[in-house]
Amino acid sequence: MTETKIKARKPHGFADRSADELLCAGRLAEKIGAVYKLYGFEPMETPFIEFTEALGKFLPDKERPNEGVFSFQDDDEQWLSLRYDLTAPLARFYAENSAGLARPFRSFRHGWVFRNEKAKPGRFRQFLQFDADTVGSSSPAADAELCMMGADTLDYLGLQRGEFVIRVNNRKIMDGILENIGLSSKDTDKRLTVMRAMDKLDKIGLDGVADLLGKGRLDESGDFTKGAELSAAGQDIVLRFLQANGKNAAATLDNVQALVEASPQGRAGLAELRQMQALFNAAGYGQDRIKIDPSIVRGLEYYTGPVFEAELCVALVNKDGVKTTIGSIGGGGRYDGLVSRFSDIPVPATGFSIGLSRLMAGLKHLDKLNAGEEQGPVLVLAMDKDEQALARYQHMVGELRRAGIRSELYLGEAGMKAQMKYADRRKAPCVLIQGSHEREAGTVEIKDLIEGARLAGQIEDNEKWRQDNPAQSTVAQSNIVAAVQKILARHFS
Amino acid sequence: MTETKIKARKPHGFADRSADELLCAGRLAEKIGAVYKLYGFEPMETPFIEFTEALGKFLPDKERPNEGVFSFQDDDEQWLSLRYDLTAPLARFYAENSAGLARPFRSFRHGWVFRNEKAKPGRFRQFLQFDADTVGSSSPAADAELCMMGADTLDYLGLQRGEFVIRVNNRKIMDGILENIGLSSKDTDKRLTVMRAMDKLDKIGLDGVADLLGKGRLDESGDFTKGAELSAAGQDIVLRFLQANGKNAAATLDNVQALVEASPQGRAGLAELRQMQALFNAAGYGQDRIKIDPSIVRGLEYYTGPVFEAELCVALVNKDGVKTTIGSIGGGGRYDGLVSRFSDIPVPATGFSIGLSRLMAGLKHLDKLNAGEEQGPVLVLAMDKDEQALARYQHMVGELRRAGIRSELYLGEAGMKAQMKYADRRKAPCVLIQGSHEREAGTVEIKDLIEGARLAGQIEDNEKWRQDNPAQSTVAQSNIVAAVQKILARHFS
Repeated sequence: MTETKIKARKPHGFADRSADELLCAGRLAEKIGAVYKLYGFEPMETPFIEFTEALGKFLPDKERPNEGVFSFQDDDEQWLSLRYDLTAPLARFYAENSAGLARPFRSFRHGWVFRNEKAKPGRFRQFLQFDADTVGSSSPAADAELCMMGADTLDYLGLQRGEFVIRVNNRKIMDGILENIGLSSKDTDKRLTVMRAMDKLDKIGLDGVADLLGKGRLDESGDFTKGAELSAAGQDIVLRFLQANGKNAAATLDNVQALVEASPQGRAGLAELRQMQALFNAAGYGQDRIKIDPSIVRGLEYYTGPVFEAELCVALVNKDGVKTTIGSIGGGGRYDGLVSRFSDIPVPATGFSIGLSRLMAGLKHLDKLNAGEEQGPVLVLAMDKDEQALARYQHMVGELRRAGIRSELYLGEAGMKAQMKYADRRKAPCVLIQGSHEREAGTVEIKDLIEGARLAGQIEDNEKWRQDNPAQSTVAQSNIVAAVQKILARHFS
Repeated sequence: MTETKIKARKPHGFADRSADELLCAGRLAEKIGAVYKLYGFEPMETPFIEFTEALGKFLPDKERPNEGVFSFQDDDEQWLSLRYDLTAPLARFYAENSAGLARPFRSFRHGWVFRNEKAKPGRFRQFLQFDADTVGSSSPAADAELCMMGADTLDYLGLQRGEFVIRVNNRKIMDGILENIGLSSKDTDKRLTVMRAMDKLDKIGLDGVADLLGKGRLDESGDFTKGAELSAAGQDIVLRFLQANGKNAAATLDNVQALVEASPQGRAGLAELRQMQALFNAAGYGQDRIKIDPSIVRGLEYYTGPVFEAELCVALVNKDGVKTTIGSIGGGGRYDGLVSRFSDIPVPATGFSIGLSRLMAGLKHLDKLNAGEEQGPVLVLAMDKDEQALARYQHMVGELRRAGIRSELYLGEAGMKAQMKYADRRKAPCVLIQGSHEREAGTVEIKDLIEGARLAGQIEDNEKWRQDNPAQSTVAQSNIVAAVQKILARHFS
């Protein structure tokens, strides 16, 4: 009878994680959490699955079914979704529990989110975010605090001046610009086209953005993207806005002021930005860490005021030899409307989110995140495999473990040579060997594999090496714990 | 314009987690991981979403759509599922990567799994598991090791003798029994009915099981469950098997032997069980920690040999006043067929899984898991809310944080009384107050809230209390860090 075997594979966009990656991610999360706690935020967690309507549809990727969200129907036919970020579930949590919560409510959350993205190498559909949010404060001081905390976090992770920057903008200013070019809040599609075009500045440059603001753009692959068809004057305002960066924050703010002065909404956004900049100045965060930047858009639709983006300014060369940067590793902003979807009482809120995988990649590239060599287990070889022998070996392993020594008995079927190979693969610092000969003598052979590897590098006389066996010793069975401890102390202390 | 507001709620079977729960769960996971590492297992992780066919359908709950699994179609119409345990994804991982892995492959994994269970209070559809597995060893020593590691883990978590037990059985023995009562491997449905009946022993007692082995059983709610309709002789064998526990392991094994001797499969299972028991004896694990128990079934269908179940033997009284026990907090067994679903080469494997939520509930009930009081942030009150004042307060908070003191500036809109209430709620150890009066004097008022609460309990003269303000002090603004450190040292060292 032949059976059809199932292919062992993962769906695209999902990955397994090794011990090394888990260790790095754990350390990173611990450090970020330490900074967030220092700032007075409390950890909490929401579930992975929510009612689809509770999460809402705020993702920028409109081209996908369910708009990029993994969704399915419950048995009672209500739609459920996997969370696509950690902000929408927080809004649900706050609305559900507000009566019992301190206000402002300051929390941080860390965990997996899911996006049903198109298949693309290196693009994941499950990734880790680390968020902090202040719900119940409308003060720009709350937004400014998140930017400063973001900068402090990247400092604490060992990044130097110039290796990162937090860029800050304001959606109300954007609204003012859109108003100035004749797009009211009802022109949703056209506004979105303009904002998406602006968001592509670092990828396609000013000329590319200009095309997308006008008739449209033909990309290298021959795909044509229809443009927003703004008037020449409208295009000019947007392009000037994107280039409003001045030699310092004051100059940038003045440049922006000239562009939005006519719009009440724009003026309100500018005032908030000025207030945030005053706090950055007072606290000593210069433009090398936090920088006003009118080109920052942020894709999510729920933002209503200040928006920020954290960028690693580290040059990379990708595998095709093309120079690139790590770019955005997080961001956030104010989302005053998200909680009030559930309630008649307006609840202002602001948050900052770090994408852990990208940050981890950046830190590894900069050699600022090392898992370090984990110590492998001491291996007791299974020289004999009868019941009594296994019980004796198990007893030796038990003794080592009770002394706190990481160790295991070889449990496979293979012979000695393969067992030694297994020991190497597991990075065992040493192996314990007791065949019938040693058993009769009441002894155990211990091979120091680290020392052995070192000496093997210096070998001159193969014959002499085999005779001397310099990294091997014979100890009384009653003495294995002390002998192993001595070897470990030699290499790991 | 009236808007319909969305109700803030979670789907049934999902829960939010507080800081306290996260801290407890984190500590628990750290301790379990330490024992698993000591045993030579390595951490790893698989994604949440897999191809449905890669996971297979092995859950006991056949009455649910998708058999208890959350599933949805990908854009290319392939079916995907949320993982329902950590074993099936490991089998996929091993089959996909076996060439590059040490063999035996010893890993541990920790994370959320999802089951689409029926709504019931206290039954969750997202819960945490902590698994260890040895893939590539067919030796009962590998199964025995997992049982001993389970016992060591529960020891390490502070459980006393008699508070837990690991029960051990073998599916091959069960097969022998089923063979003896005339059910071959083709009688899938009937075998399942018998095993499900046996699995209910602790809930419905021997008489209840007898009904389910015969015509069927009418439960208290009036629901009738159809039975397996075994012959009287068949029922007798199963019931005797369920009662085969003797005064010690040797007696139990002899009782079982009498029932399965006629079946080759049964004899093979018994031999494995005897070998495991010999290892338990040699390593000093008595029946008070690991116990052969023929009534253990384990619901998952993929088990092929030894099965084990970890039980917390702790009496509880539930909210209806009914006495109950915490019961099973984990288990596992050998699943030699799971990896070979992907490959023509047979790959033996065995694993042990802990249900973290239930274990956590048990440990909390026994007062063996306390988060401890986390220190709240020092709060700087926002007495004035103009831009300059906020910058000054922010500066004070920055100073405290740079000294490593957890602190925050009040960012809400409320007045002083509400701010003090907020400080209480956040468990702030002290608050810093600087109104215009203090600002002119270059000072800051510091209220020690812990000391204040203590003294308030001793109050005799309300008037005197207000005058003396014993828990309040005035310090120079340049001195706030030292003053706060003194208060923290008084309460937290």
